[in-house]
Amino acid sequence: MPQFPLPEPMRRALDLAKTAADRGEVPVGAVVVKDGAIIGEGHNRPRESHDPTAHAEIVAIRAAAAKLGNERLEGCDLYVTLEPCAMCAGAIAHARIARLYYGADDPKGGGVIHGPRVFTQPTVHHRPEVYDGIGAGEAAGLLKDFFAARR
Amino acid sequence: MPQFPLPEPMRRALDLAKTAADRGEVPVGAVVVKDGAIIGEGHNRPRESHDPTAHAEIVAIRAAAAKLGNERLEGCDLYVTLEPCAMCAGAIAHARIARLYYGADDPKGGGVIHGPRVFTQPTVHHRPEVYDGIGAGEAAGLLKDFFAARR
Repeated sequence: MPQFPLPEPMRRALDLAKTAADRGEVPVGAVVVKDGAIIGEGHNRPRESHDPTAHAEIVAIRAAAAKLGNERLEGCDLYVTLEPCAMCAGAIAHARIARLYYGADDPKGGGVIHGPRVFTQPTVHHRPEVYDGIGAGEAAGLLKDFFAARR
Repeated sequence: MPQFPLPEPMRRALDLAKTAADRGEVPVGAVVVKDGAIIGEGHNRPRESHDPTAHAEIVAIRAAAAKLGNERLEGCDLYVTLEPCAMCAGAIAHARIARLYYGADDPKGGGVIHGPRVFTQPTVHHRPEVYDGIGAGEAAGLLKDFFAARR
């Protein structure tokens, strides 16, 4: 039975994750969408960039904010292939992202439904709507293949 | 009675916080120190940079990592005038900062001893040594004056 097609932004995020893997970076990709158009995107690249903050979400958020000329991404959606970590969840809150769509869960490093559960804290300044599991199989497959090849 | 002098890196971080206030940004400053020398510094500047991730700590960590050509700041100390938020605490863990010295507590936005308490999570990949209260009075005073002037 054919699978219901993934939303275009998540397909793009998965392509970006593949690009990360090709460059030897942990395969995670992210895109920011406003009014149906991609306004920022990125893949995980801390090694290449010599930048420990260069997770896919941070790269995409910085690009989108630069494009809009505004630190707040009001009304924007973020699609990312993996559950965001504490750093990225914090950035999502600071950026006022309206809706977060993510693929695979990350029990070891996630900060949304695991660990610090950033958006559930009473002190968080902004909570996006959160939708998980979109493209989870593809996203988890990329990560599994990446780490299997390095063992 | 004269106060015990602040460590030089925290004095520099406080100067950077003042610079932020002068530019209309929430006054927080940070420096990264390696082997006694400052290798990265920054002040809060999300508005000026159109970058929601441009907290003092992120700016300082990115500068230090670029300078070292390494995403990991092994053996480095971070001095920041305010308790880091979840985003910045996550970045500190990713950067493998050895020691974190911060000034004022931040009950509303902090992520170290408040809210998500990032470094206490079993899933955190790295925990710095944490020292608080260094220059807390000066740091809190800058924040209080900044917000009072805007009311």
